[in-house]
Amino acid sequence: MSSRERRKDGGIPSGVVTRLPIYLRYLTELRDQGVGRVSSAQLGKALSFTAAQIRSDLSYFGSFGQQGYGYDVDELLMHISRILGLNRTYAMVLVGAGNLGKALASYENFRKRGFEIRAIFDVDEILVGNYHACCVIQPVEELDQYLKENPTDIGIIATPGHVSQDICDVLVANNVPCIWNFSPVHLQVPDEVIVEHIHLTDSLLRLSFRLNEQRHRD
Amino acid sequence: MSSRERRKDGGIPSGVVTRLPIYLRYLTELRDQGVGRVSSAQLGKALSFTAAQIRSDLSYFGSFGQQGYGYDVDELLMHISRILGLNRTYAMVLVGAGNLGKALASYENFRKRGFEIRAIFDVDEILVGNYHACCVIQPVEELDQYLKENPTDIGIIATPGHVSQDICDVLVANNVPCIWNFSPVHLQVPDEVIVEHIHLTDSLLRLSFRLNEQRHRD
Repeated sequence: MSSRERRKDGGIPSGVVTRLPIYLRYLTELRDQGVGRVSSAQLGKALSFTAAQIRSDLSYFGSFGQQGYGYDVDELLMHISRILGLNRTYAMVLVGAGNLGKALASYENFRKRGFEIRAIFDVDEILVGNYHACCVIQPVEELDQYLKENPTDIGIIATPGHVSQDICDVLVANNVPCIWNFSPVHLQVPDEVIVEHIHLTDSLLRLSFRLNEQRHRD
Repeated sequence: MSSRERRKDGGIPSGVVTRLPIYLRYLTELRDQGVGRVSSAQLGKALSFTAAQIRSDLSYFGSFGQQGYGYDVDELLMHISRILGLNRTYAMVLVGAGNLGKALASYENFRKRGFEIRAIFDVDEILVGNYHACCVIQPVEELDQYLKENPTDIGIIATPGHVSQDICDVLVANNVPCIWNFSPVHLQVPDEVIVEHIHLTDSLLRLSFRLNEQRHRD
């Protein structure tokens, strides 16, 4: 692997981290199809990476692969799962029970992987008190008290943009270490807080950019 | 800017493309707040990039910035909008009218930017015939005929994973150039088809990875 990419603190470069879930997903598909082993060339072809890239990425986690044999799917899955922290459960709260929030709360894959939405909050009095995906929707004013009583790993923000920083501040003040942000706003958080943004419009704009680039080229 | 990053075909490197929507979003916020100009240092601080990175990125689109003055917010917005292809509208179809699909169809920001969902399809007979966000939900069997009659720029796949490749194949066969994929599956498409994936679980796994990395470090 390139020394340029290897981080000085011994941590795993963000590019590799970004690809680990992709490996996990594809290897899970392979295991479910009964595939026992896979070569770096096969992985690369399926995922549109080079075989060298695959070998480089996986080398961060010890030497699983054997020349001429490839990787044992189960073993690789186990290693990647552990590296991704999938050997435990994560307590989550969801703020915002609109269509997007409801979709997130209903998503079975999260729970299967150990990510459990344990409480849902919304500002809308019509929604409060309703059950959704095994949680009663609580008034957002109770978020602060809930977090004081229930240590929480991940706060999901699926609110309109104009309130998301306020919600974020409540999460941060209650030591929620991770924020999963679906609102179209760049949140201000202390350095130690981990944030993942899902900016849907950004993704759509990358599509339109690439479409226009392609049309100008043709 | 680094020559390593500059693409040989004169195109814009994918890293820059990824950041353009981030600039657009933040500059729109600034404009809405009545801010007329901004320096690369201010942009960098707000977006957690270095000022050098900002200047390098924006240099791909000509020299807007003036030493000691910074960037004119309106002018920069206009350029970035044009580069992102926001000077036209995009016809979209949505396949899958579950909670996530409904959330996408209701998202006002897309329409504001010119991304118009013009038809919605689902396999569920209970949903078919209902109106959602100004579209009647049509049976998925009619997708193929619809696409033959209505040229479409972007196909949104918000279906369960086991049918998403089939849906993708119908879109591709009808020359839909862009796929926006929300299903947890790696789609196989011809090289010329542009795909953006929103893999929610992958994003969640990056959170758990970083949380575990942080806890091991502390």
